Amino acid sequence: MVRKLYSLCGADGKRHYSPHVWKIIMALEHKELEYELIPVTFGEISKIEDGSYSSVPVLRDGGVVLGESFDIARYLDETYVDTPNIFDGKGGIALARFVESYCKTVLHPSLATIAVMDMHNLMSSDDQAYFRAARERRFGMSLEAMAEGADAERAVLPEKLAPVRELLATQDWLSGVTPAYADYTLFGTLQWCNVCKPNNLFQKDDIVSNWFDRCLDLYDGIGRDPTRTKQ
Amino acid sequence: MVRKLYSLCGADGKRHYSPHVWKIIMALEHKELEYELIPVTFGEISKIEDGSYSSVPVLRDGGVVLGESFDIARYLDETYVDTPNIFDGKGGIALARFVESYCKTVLHPSLATIAVMDMHNLMSSDDQAYFRAARERRFGMSLEAMAEGADAERAVLPEKLAPVRELLATQDWLSGVTPAYADYTLFGTLQWCNVCKPNNLFQKDDIVSNWFDRCLDLYDGIGRDPTRTKQ
Repeated sequence: MVRKLYSLCGADGKRHYSPHVWKIIMALEHKELEYELIPVTFGEISKIEDGSYSSVPVLRDGGVVLGESFDIARYLDETYVDTPNIFDGKGGIALARFVESYCKTVLHPSLATIAVMDMHNLMSSDDQAYFRAARERRFGMSLEAMAEGADAERAVLPEKLAPVRELLATQDWLSGVTPAYADYTLFGTLQWCNVCKPNNLFQKDDIVSNWFDRCLDLYDGIGRDPTRTKQ
Repeated sequence: MVRKLYSLCGADGKRHYSPHVWKIIMALEHKELEYELIPVTFGEISKIEDGSYSSVPVLRDGGVVLGESFDIARYLDETYVDTPNIFDGKGGIALARFVESYCKTVLHPSLATIAVMDMHNLMSSDDQAYFRAARERRFGMSLEAMAEGADAERAVLPEKLAPVRELLATQDWLSGVTPAYADYTLFGTLQWCNVCKPNNLFQKDDIVSNWFDRCLDLYDGIGRDPTRTKQ
């Protein structure tokens, strides 16, 4: 039975926009593991497998089912030791965790504002209603009012990416000479916005933009179209 | 011949305040290598060894002399393979580089402002004159005007440390279950301000403050008094 990766998707069943799912898509590709991408809407998450999940990714791998991207990445590396390692040792696990913390605390708040309307617009109408209610409750304002802050967030993004830019000035990948899970963590985070609205994040010839393009080229360009294989 | 580590120091010859030297003090301790700490003033840096250095740390190790903290750390790990590793593999090198980039781009600008007058006040009068001229030229304002921004920088520091706080909520050290060079990189950066004026950086019971205290306790508490050993 082929591995199944449940992935939050737009109404067209093609635009996979969850940052955390993208981390696992890249991890599965890196580890040369076959999988089937199962698109789900927000409304369908509670029906995945035994119904105990409230977020994606969820991976079914034979008799094993698990959620939380970092746990899935660790599981894949520990279970499939004969395919390429995605962490490069204990230090690489710590690196990926720090990149994850950086993405969550520094980038996510900006990206959530930048992407809010594009994200809304690619959803099914049921998901749109759910998303609007949940976000408006969390932020205490309408989606449209949130979106008014998008330009300001886009303006501070280059500064927020300064630690990444500084690092990528000296090496091609966050992880060193080859990409690994730390790269996929940042890639997934930015890919979220890129799927919602391509070419909307970076200034031309930014070192970070060039790295992002290299990520999009990995694994036969799966970042450009995840629906073109393994379906 | 014992190893020599040249270290920028206050007029009292005891307060070693260079962030980059602290990284190497901790690295040498971690690797269980003997060394002598040689205090130098700004004015004496150009007279270290063959006179080709413009910054510290500089390490003399037998016939080898080298500068730049990251290069020294790599050299120590590659040369002394039988003592504890300070990087935990390729991933750990990448982690330390990312922490270094984060410190340089996110923390240094704030800390340079927070520490400016305390740093000035612990120097010899010759160094004070040099430091004042160099900083006033670089920032286009007097040291006293720079220092007026210290409270504002101290106020944003907790937010700037958010990625570290998020990570340390789940593990004791940046590097995982034991400290390594990524920890020493951030520690050195913050120790710079701590040496200039103790207990001036953190709010009480901050997760980051607790981690910093654990760093100060390492290696018989060398972070609390580097002059008490190996001189």
